[in-house]
Amino acid sequence: MSIIIHGTVVSPFVRKVFVALEEKGIAYEKVDVRPLPRTDELFAKSPLGKIPVMEVEGTYVPDSSVICQYLERTHPSPALYPSAALSFARALFLEEYADTKVFEIATKPFFQRFVRPRIFKEEPDEPYIREVMENELPPVLDYLSGELGDDDFLIDNQFCIADIAVCSPFVNMQTLGSEHVDAERWPKFSAYLERVLSRPAYKTAVAGLPDSTLKIK
Amino acid sequence: MSIIIHGTVVSPFVRKVFVALEEKGIAYEKVDVRPLPRTDELFAKSPLGKIPVMEVEGTYVPDSSVICQYLERTHPSPALYPSAALSFARALFLEEYADTKVFEIATKPFFQRFVRPRIFKEEPDEPYIREVMENELPPVLDYLSGELGDDDFLIDNQFCIADIAVCSPFVNMQTLGSEHVDAERWPKFSAYLERVLSRPAYKTAVAGLPDSTLKIK
Repeated sequence: MSIIIHGTVVSPFVRKVFVALEEKGIAYEKVDVRPLPRTDELFAKSPLGKIPVMEVEGTYVPDSSVICQYLERTHPSPALYPSAALSFARALFLEEYADTKVFEIATKPFFQRFVRPRIFKEEPDEPYIREVMENELPPVLDYLSGELGDDDFLIDNQFCIADIAVCSPFVNMQTLGSEHVDAERWPKFSAYLERVLSRPAYKTAVAGLPDSTLKIK
Repeated sequence: MSIIIHGTVVSPFVRKVFVALEEKGIAYEKVDVRPLPRTDELFAKSPLGKIPVMEVEGTYVPDSSVICQYLERTHPSPALYPSAALSFARALFLEEYADTKVFEIATKPFFQRFVRPRIFKEEPDEPYIREVMENELPPVLDYLSGELGDDDFLIDNQFCIADIAVCSPFVNMQTLGSEHVDAERWPKFSAYLERVLSRPAYKTAVAGLPDSTLKIK
């Protein structure tokens, strides 16, 4: 069964899927698809017009959360979801929190400094970035730090889908958005982020990321 | 293990959970919680400030999709998720499509005619409702009709979570928003909606719905 992932590693959602595939040691191919502009070709594969889309078994499966659960069913080992029901539910909720709230806030510096100049030919709004970093991001980091506690990973101290999802938007913030988590204010979460992002699977998955300092075309 | 669901059946997401519980024959209690205004008490149980929240095993689990998967793990029979990996993935994607796109569009008449007068003390925007029904809803019904084909249910002709999720926002549209799916234009989808909403579990779950003609307080 061959797996093709349509998308770009610049997307935190595509990156989630690449990391899951790498962690499980599943072979896959990549087809570069950008989410903007949303073409009819993209909508034909992905009814919500989003990436990633997985091409498998002769069909297209959109949505990073769906794809990761599919991979867990077809390639259960190593497990990326907790087996205990309540831990499984906590992992799914943290994945949802990551894919909505963390994505929304942590990717704003990336949107302003990386996407906006390249796609919309506009300057980044630096005062807005400061506002986000000073007011919107701290409650998210406080919540995630509380969930992490003194552990190495978010759920039962075992690496899982929640860690893949939560850390992915921070790649956009740090690598492509040039903003960082304050290691003095959130030392445990900062160390956690480094722990997850330095895993071989994460390093391989983000290898194709463009340099944030690339000149605008 | 006792299960308490915090929310209100007016929410299509809370309703999804009630239907899943009824289909599986799981006993549960309800605590009436409204999503607006988003109180600190709600955020303490639900970090995204949304309902439903499940209280179980001494903790709170938010998000209807997460709760339904938890219920499937703890009460596997009758199954509400397909067992084949690709069918499982298709069901999860249709649930996501329902919870985002169908929710966004099908609940607009409900928001205008039910929520807006009661919560915001404003008149419904009737021209906007017509615009939604004539332009936004048809592509959604076309897509869902294509997924359904000639079958009784969306995935492998077996009732599953996708059916629960897809039909739930239409309760808001029809019962609380006083707009209907055109049975002449979408006869199969219209019959499908009736088929799902007339299941005993659905009827029991929506029994507490207010009357859309209730006078504004």
